[in-house]
Formats: sequence, C-alpha cells, structure tokens
Amino acid sequence: MRIIVDAFGGDNAPLEIIKGAAMAVKEYGHTVILTGNEAVIRKTAEDNGIALDGMEFIDCDDVITMHDAPRSILREHKSCSMAVGMKALADGTGDAFVSAGNTGALLVGGTFLVKRIKGVSRAALAAIMPTNDGPVMMVDAGANVECRPEMLRRFAQMGSIYMTDVMGNGKQARVGLLNVGTEDEKGGELQQKTFALLKETDLNFIGNVEARQVPFGEADVVVADGFAGNTLLKTMEGTADLIVQKIKGVFNSNPMTKIAYLLVQSKMKAFKKLLSTDEYGGAPLLGLKKPVIKTHGNSKANAVKNAIRVAAEFAAADVIGKIEAVVAADADEGADDGE
Amino acid sequence: MRIIVDAFGGDNAPLEIIKGAAMAVKEYGHTVILTGNEAVIRKTAEDNGIALDGMEFIDCDDVITMHDAPRSILREHKSCSMAVGMKALADGTGDAFVSAGNTGALLVGGTFLVKRIKGVSRAALAAIMPTNDGPVMMVDAGANVECRPEMLRRFAQMGSIYMTDVMGNGKQARVGLLNVGTEDEKGGELQQKTFALLKETDLNFIGNVEARQVPFGEADVVVADGFAGNTLLKTMEGTADLIVQKIKGVFNSNPMTKIAYLLVQSKMKAFKKLLSTDEYGGAPLLGLKKPVIKTHGNSKANAVKNAIRVAAEFAAADVIGKIEAVVAADADEGADDGE
Repeated sequence: MRIIVDAFGGDNAPLEIIKGAAMAVKEYGHTVILTGNEAVIRKTAEDNGIALDGMEFIDCDDVITMHDAPRSILREHKSCSMAVGMKALADGTGDAFVSAGNTGALLVGGTFLVKRIKGVSRAALAAIMPTNDGPVMMVDAGANVECRPEMLRRFAQMGSIYMTDVMGNGKQARVGLLNVGTEDEKGGELQQKTFALLKETDLNFIGNVEARQVPFGEADVVVADGFAGNTLLKTMEGTADLIVQKIKGVFNSNPMTKIAYLLVQSKMKAFKKLLSTDEYGGAPLLGLKKPVIKTHGNSKANAVKNAIRVAAEFAAADVIGKIEAVVAADADEGADDGE
Repeated sequence: MRIIVDAFGGDNAPLEIIKGAAMAVKEYGHTVILTGNEAVIRKTAEDNGIALDGMEFIDCDDVITMHDAPRSILREHKSCSMAVGMKALADGTGDAFVSAGNTGALLVGGTFLVKRIKGVSRAALAAIMPTNDGPVMMVDAGANVECRPEMLRRFAQMGSIYMTDVMGNGKQARVGLLNVGTEDEKGGELQQKTFALLKETDLNFIGNVEARQVPFGEADVVVADGFAGNTLLKTMEGTADLIVQKIKGVFNSNPMTKIAYLLVQSKMKAFKKLLSTDEYGGAPLLGLKKPVIKTHGNSKANAVKNAIRVAAEFAAADVIGKIEAVVAADADEGADDGE
C-alpha cells in the first residue's frame, strides 16, 4: 500500500510524523509518501537519526495551521502540505491519506479535492473513541451540525461498514441512535424520523442509545447530528482528562501516595491504555471517494504509525466500494440521502 | 421554611427520604411535609428509629414509578405522592417541593399543577453537575429536546439568577453557550441566533463554550437545547462512572494494590467528593411559579437533606420573583420568548 501522509499537520509535526512514518514503513512494509518541505523533513530525519527508507516526498512549502479558516485550503493555502496530499490522493499517487492537521480544512479539502462519492450529500467525520468494550464510532462528530434524517441513515450505513470491516472482529457492527432515552418514540423529529429509517435498513440496528451507556460500549456505531456527536466526543475527552489529572494529583500528594503509585503502576498503565485512542488510528472521513484519516492533533509517533496502518486497512477493506454499493442500492429503491 | 417532600420518589424511598427529612428538620429547623402513605412512613420511621418531630403529612396511597408515562400524573396517577405534593405547593401549603421520582412526570406535573410563570413558554430542567471549579448548571438538561433561540435566552436568564443567588458565591454567574467551537460564528442556526440574543442581554455572557471545557468549570451556566444538554450531562456521568469503576478495579487487583489504596485513601475520598453531586441538592425546574427541585433517583439521606436545604434557599432567594421581573422587563421591550 502507498499511504500519503501530511508531514506538517498537528502539534508535533514534522518530527513525530516522520518518526511514525518510519515505524510504519518498517513494521508494515507500506510505502509512505510525505508531503511538505522536503529539505526540512530530511534535516529533521538526519538530526534525529531517522531512516527515510521506503519513503517518497512531495515537496511543498506552505502549511495550513489550526488558526487558518478551513476554506483557505482552497485559496491562499491551496499549496499547503494537506492540500497537496489530498490532490495526490485524488490523482491516484497513493491509496489513502493521513493528516493530524486542521480538521475543518481537511473536511473542506476532502469534499472539494478528494470529492464525495456520488449520492452522498455530506461527508461525515467519524471519531473513534475508547469504551470499556472496544472502540466506538461517533458519527457525525462535528462536520455537520445540522442534519436531516436521511443524512443520519447514510452516516449509519457508512459507519457500520467501517466498524465491521476495518475495526471489527468479524461481527456485524451494532448501530445505535443517540437519544435522550431508550424508548422507541424518544427525542425530537430528527431522532424519531431517523429511528424509522434505520429500522428499515439491514443494519444491525439496536435502537436508541443513551449517552451514559456509550462509554460502556453498548454500541459499535453511535449515530447523531454533528452537534450532539461533537458534544458527546468532547465531553468524554474533557471528563476523562479531568479525572486522570485528579488521579495523578492523588498519587503525587506526598511520599506515601508516591509509594502507593509504585504498587499500582502496572495496573494503572493498563487502565490508561484503555483510555488511549492511539491504537485506533484516528477518525475516518466517510463519504469521500478515497480513504482519508484524521489523526488527533496531539498525535505522537505511535499514533501516527497506527493511523498509517489503519489507513491501509481502510483502503484494503474496500470500504469505499462497499459504500458505493449501498448508495447505488438505495438509489434503486428511491431512498437517497435527501438532496 | 415549609418544604414539601415526595416520600415515595426515587430508588431508595421511603427510608432514605424520611431519614434525609429528619436530618434536615434537625439541622436547618425547616418543617418538612411528607407526601405519601402516612402509615407506611410512620412504620418505616419507627422500624428505623427515626424521629418524626417537625414533620407533617399529606396522606395518599398512590405512587408514580419510573415506568409510568409522564402524563399519567394528570390522569391515572393524579393522586400519587408526587402529584399531591405539587398540588400542595400550588395551593400554598409549603414554600418548595422536592422529589427524587420520575423526571418526566415531575416536568408534566410542574407545568400543569404548579404552572409556569406568565411569559415563560417552557419550563427547563436545570441539572447541576460537579466540575473542577465548583458546580455548573446545564440548562436545558433534557426537558425540551427542540428549542428556539428565544427559549435558550430565557433558560440563560433563569439559570443565571439561580446560579448567582442560590449556588453562587456572590459573583454574577458566567453564562456560556454550548457550541462546537469557541469562535463567535460557530454552530448551526440555533447557536448563531442564540449567541446574538445573549450578546444583547445584561448577563455575564462569556460566549461559546466547548463541551471539553465544561468539566473544568469554564462557565457557571451552560445553555443548550435539551438534546445536547442531556447528551453532555449523561456523557459526563457515564464517563466518570466507568473511570471510577476502573480505578476501583485497579486497587482491588491484588494484596499489593489493596495496600496502595490504604496509602491514598484520604486523598481518594476527597477526589470522590469532587465528583459527587450530593451537596448540590439537585436539579431545579426553572420557569415554574413555585420552587421545585428534582433530586437524583438514587439519592440517599444526605442528598435528600441537601435537596431540602437548597429548596429552602431557592425559595428564600426569591428566584421566582427575580425571573418574573426579567420576563416583565423583556415583555416591555417586546422581547418575549417566542410563543
């Protein structure tokens, strides 16, 4: 597989990106195509003793930052490392694209440079989060704050394919609709209409899911509009961050509590691993013609390595071909996604 | 103060309710009026050695459970302990009402038995949650899944009064609008229009707040539609529950980790106290003509005691008079809440 990676996206670019790329080349045998200033990449690699075997480069100078407007990727930053990577993906230079950069810009670039699958009216950002029982996908996680029921049905279909074929263990993903209660008639018009649409699909639809149950792993795919999905995702992150910070404070209180930490260290590491998303690779953008993965902005080498692995699996599993087939089948039945 | 308490609401009724009532009578000198089967209350008190000094009773047989439809409080369960309590509140028998029972029924009963303040189109459920920096109010927390901007402005006004005058430390509450980003123009139509409305109020409006910052205490009042608010509330609860459960597992792993727990025990208790809502009394229903507090369904005596204290403070601070004044001032300016 040939995976294109934005070497200048995220808080730890380019060093951690290059490190992760080198790990992925060595571990999985993929070719990694790095986009960004080649001289800086080579200098960073040399300074840090990173071998660039198995890598190719697409040289460009510009970088889009977290502070740039998303749409600037089509205009003033149209030659940034992210845009150049997506254009290379679109023209077939690589099989998938990974970036830890500006999420909004990635969504705009995905829609206008990589382009959507015919019949998909909106691309979704599908965050993958840890639960007590494996990863859960929250779709949409913020790309579309206002949604129609048909959009949510499409998100559910795309998310189910990804979680079953890329993240799954062979079992068909359990799809839940985020709601304020578990009874069928709960929620507003969006939830009630979406519930009815999901009932008619051949998805493994388990009905309404309350936010409280999501961290316990009650569903593999949780469907919501991007506003509620983003709220859930960020509340989980913020709550976990605060509690982990407080627990650290407990152990750092005095010499006795520091000794206590030594006694629970290995168990605490296993616990922290449960909360980590490093293994999941990142959030796929679903609905585009080619595989794009958004890794967390604070990703370090290990997370970047896993993002490259998952991007290759995303391509290898032909998720996009399967989405196209579902969209075509729906179109035959007159069930488009509302636009 | 005379506080009416539903003796048969919640998972631990009537024992923990009666215990909490007795504690409140003793500690604060309030009169508590218990609603429900008086014989059962007296027998429970006797069996458990609880003195019933300072209490009055409104005898009734029926109870509304978590499984009953909310609207049944107006029909088949119109004589349940919750309905009887709200009618007594409406007719002036007491100054405030507390229940740990069915939230939906309490909202319906609040609206139709206690009734709304003139000019308030919808009552809100205003959950109070712990943060790293004191309590935060999430309003609406699920009573109104679909909202108009004018409703959110009203929720913000009511929440600000409550958090400033009942839960506050004298400083004007910081009001934030839940959004998917902090920039002014973020979100959908609901958020953008609400943002503009809140800018025009004399609230201490701090702008958009991301869900990730809520557990850190960035705002004292977070305003959202009931769907997103409920999602945030329940995600915080679920995430915290899962992590606390996992941490318990860490300490319970083996004899060494159990020794470790002894070394951090006092610090862990302080940490658990941070996550507890027992001191906050519960969620006020805002927009009604009289003070109503919903305590958590799993409340034990201490939480019930605090709910009675807070209910009395809710009444003493004349929150309702202040809400009426704001509504009247808005009406003079032609700024009603949209109905």
